[in-house]
Amino acid sequence: MRNVKTLGLLGTGVIGGGWAARALHFGIDVVAADVKPEMEAWIRGAVENAEPALARLTFAPLPPKGKLSFTTDLRVMAAQADFIQENIPEQLELKQRMLAEVSRHAPADVVIASSTSGLMPSDLQRDMVAPERFCVAHPFNPVYLLPLVELVGGGKTVPATIEAAAAFFRFIGMHPLPVRREIPGHLTDRLQEALWREILHMVNDGVATTGELDDSIIYGPGLRWAAMGTNMIYHLAGGESGMRHMLAQFGPCLKWPWTKLEAPELTEALIDRMVEGTQAQARGRSIRELERLRDDYLVAVQQVLRQYDIGAGSTLRALEERLYKDAAAAAGAGLADSAGPLRLVETVVRPEWVDYNAHMTDYRYLHVFGEAMDAFYRTIGVDDAYRKAGRMFYNVETHVAYAREAKVGEPLYVTTQVLGSNEKRLHVFHRLHRRRDGEIIATGEQMHLHVDTAAAKAAPIEMAVRAKLERIRAAHAALPWPTEAGRHVGRTKAS
Amino acid sequence: MRNVKTLGLLGTGVIGGGWAARALHFGIDVVAADVKPEMEAWIRGAVENAEPALARLTFAPLPPKGKLSFTTDLRVMAAQADFIQENIPEQLELKQRMLAEVSRHAPADVVIASSTSGLMPSDLQRDMVAPERFCVAHPFNPVYLLPLVELVGGGKTVPATIEAAAAFFRFIGMHPLPVRREIPGHLTDRLQEALWREILHMVNDGVATTGELDDSIIYGPGLRWAAMGTNMIYHLAGGESGMRHMLAQFGPCLKWPWTKLEAPELTEALIDRMVEGTQAQARGRSIRELERLRDDYLVAVQQVLRQYDIGAGSTLRALEERLYKDAAAAAGAGLADSAGPLRLVETVVRPEWVDYNAHMTDYRYLHVFGEAMDAFYRTIGVDDAYRKAGRMFYNVETHVAYAREAKVGEPLYVTTQVLGSNEKRLHVFHRLHRRRDGEIIATGEQMHLHVDTAAAKAAPIEMAVRAKLERIRAAHAALPWPTEAGRHVGRTKAS
Repeated sequence: MRNVKTLGLLGTGVIGGGWAARALHFGIDVVAADVKPEMEAWIRGAVENAEPALARLTFAPLPPKGKLSFTTDLRVMAAQADFIQENIPEQLELKQRMLAEVSRHAPADVVIASSTSGLMPSDLQRDMVAPERFCVAHPFNPVYLLPLVELVGGGKTVPATIEAAAAFFRFIGMHPLPVRREIPGHLTDRLQEALWREILHMVNDGVATTGELDDSIIYGPGLRWAAMGTNMIYHLAGGESGMRHMLAQFGPCLKWPWTKLEAPELTEALIDRMVEGTQAQARGRSIRELERLRDDYLVAVQQVLRQYDIGAGSTLRALEERLYKDAAAAAGAGLADSAGPLRLVETVVRPEWVDYNAHMTDYRYLHVFGEAMDAFYRTIGVDDAYRKAGRMFYNVETHVAYAREAKVGEPLYVTTQVLGSNEKRLHVFHRLHRRRDGEIIATGEQMHLHVDTAAAKAAPIEMAVRAKLERIRAAHAALPWPTEAGRHVGRTKAS
Repeated sequence: MRNVKTLGLLGTGVIGGGWAARALHFGIDVVAADVKPEMEAWIRGAVENAEPALARLTFAPLPPKGKLSFTTDLRVMAAQADFIQENIPEQLELKQRMLAEVSRHAPADVVIASSTSGLMPSDLQRDMVAPERFCVAHPFNPVYLLPLVELVGGGKTVPATIEAAAAFFRFIGMHPLPVRREIPGHLTDRLQEALWREILHMVNDGVATTGELDDSIIYGPGLRWAAMGTNMIYHLAGGESGMRHMLAQFGPCLKWPWTKLEAPELTEALIDRMVEGTQAQARGRSIRELERLRDDYLVAVQQVLRQYDIGAGSTLRALEERLYKDAAAAAGAGLADSAGPLRLVETVVRPEWVDYNAHMTDYRYLHVFGEAMDAFYRTIGVDDAYRKAGRMFYNVETHVAYAREAKVGEPLYVTTQVLGSNEKRLHVFHRLHRRRDGEIIATGEQMHLHVDTAAAKAAPIEMAVRAKLERIRAAHAALPWPTEAGRHVGRTKAS
């Protein structure tokens, strides 16, 4: 099979557009064929819409983007393509006819794949020339972001076809999943469809709304499914004896009317397959180890969703609002009269903050100082309402001096000292400490400028905030000047 | 109903332990009752195991942790608890008997809730004293991290019970989902169970292994389910006319043998309910707007999983390895002879990097400079193999000067200039540019120290790396010294 430089698309639409965007982004040329000439503008629009998200997927250097061309003549496409992906409507006879047609014009070493959601490859390849180079390659929407592609061969498909397809899809950043036997709906859509039909039953029976049913997934199992499937999750839920215990404990539920779907008989042979399968998945990792991995990604995924204020991330935001409010109420004006540096943030080094040696990455020190500034601002009355009124502090300059390493899981806290302040500026000094012995692991000196965001220029700090700030500044004036303040990187040009 | 200061647990186990960990973390005292005295050590262990993950969930200030006590006498627990959560084995008669028993000892203003996965509240409350204060509160494993809790009342439950339970669960960071009608399995477990039974059928039929079936979710639909459920996702897949188009297009599939579960008849009434439900979920947001939100979180979730090298994150890592290798091969030695500053990183401001005004957060500038250093190190031969041999560069000092704001989506690039280098040190200067006009939006000056990681002390840079570095240093010696280099924060103490 050929090395793929040019991808031919037979049919456009949402799926074809997704394939085009992904292939172009990773440097593959694309020739899209569609009988409707108006689809040219459509597919160019689809590629453009996908680009902002794709551009953020990785920092790694990308080859020059591929070139997109369009034709209404499938022969033009077939003459240029090294790999052909069919994305026409989900009708068996139509697909059979078009696949046979394109196979007459494409050389026999060009893989031809179908994006079909559920049709069987043996049926689709029936009338093709060189049917051994055909397979199903079923992607998921949005194709340009989701890595999964199911690969299914028919009766006449040769293994080299699946291998070549897998190599190409891996090249454009995907995860090919070879399916060992053709069945309607392949693997993924059977699982999705079971869930979907149960949803339709519950909506039909008036048990729940679509929104309630979506919530029943996204705040719970959906978070787990981002990185572990049902089998691995149930293996973990079974405690030390894993899937076997789980089946013993919840086996009886299979007889209960928990869904409209009848379960198979839980025979010894089936139990063995489930247990052996999940043991293979665990790859020797203990339940405890897998639990830690699960917990790590569950925390990290919720924090990402928090940024977008969606699903479990909204729950986390609401919780934090309440915690900040409670803490402010508990502290009262007390904090502002503190004679020493303010201790406003406690945290631990998170697993996603470390790299290589499990040491905290350099920019995360500044992240923690940023959290300390947020807490400081809350203390002096700079909150969402203040920002909505068009006033804000910007960090204009920062100097970080790294003194010690911080390992993953290390408990830390930050103390913040005000070095100076005038009507528009705030000069602060943070120290990041290890909680166990108070040792300083880094310091951060920062200059913040108060701005009018609409005018985009420096503006005086509002009086109420200024007053609170002044109380802290005056109290901190008695503190010694930090040795690390006022320093520049290196000391001489001759470093 | 009472304000909750103390949570009583009836029964421990995995679920009871999860409840204890979550409640204690958010400042609630817990009294756990279990007939087996050995469960005291067990639940203390469970709380301890949950703590590392919980401690990383939020930076927000937490109240002092609650206190955990244990008793084998449920009357002792009932006398102290403001809210009682039952977590005993999933047997109807046993639960009925124990719930009746505890209801005789707990005042009538104490909510009593059951963690049951699928039993009906009307059955459970049958023999209770004051059954109106009873409801099902069904959580998900791990209870200390997943926010979902389904709330289901029985025939005798009053609305105030559900409201009080919802308020308590929200206080400990959860998302209460009131279920409007009691059915076996509530909502979530019906959906999970449909998927699970389909898995059992496919494993039983020899169609796929447990690992293949898990992969069929985690690389595709599972990523979507982290923040949008099936209904919203299908609404998006329907294009501009959303769910209605989707049902027209995929309605026929409901008759196909895609799962062992028969779908309901797709009547006009059902179509209307599905369409109205998803419209309500969209809350006026267009399909395009929702697509952008979906794309944003799909990118961000994959980047988080990349940190843990799990699922789609492993796919992304493998892709990046290949891209870096290709780029290095394409560049050859060319980069190292470049006369100007090196241009090694191109990126755009990601949505999760911004705050408040959609401007890039301060620490993300340093994040981008870190990516530039990674790319620089790859160029001079500092790769995973070099690090595995126990040699590494540490950032010891950084000065960032912020000149302009960068809005979300802004395309950027970094240029890197070597200011100096000796046998153990590397002094570099980064400039972050806007791609559209080349304007500098920030500069970063850094001192990196080469260390022997085992000895944890400075050590000479290896010769091959040193030679490449020296070529770049010599070429850059002709470049003008940056005006921002060698500066310290503020300029005088009197800031």
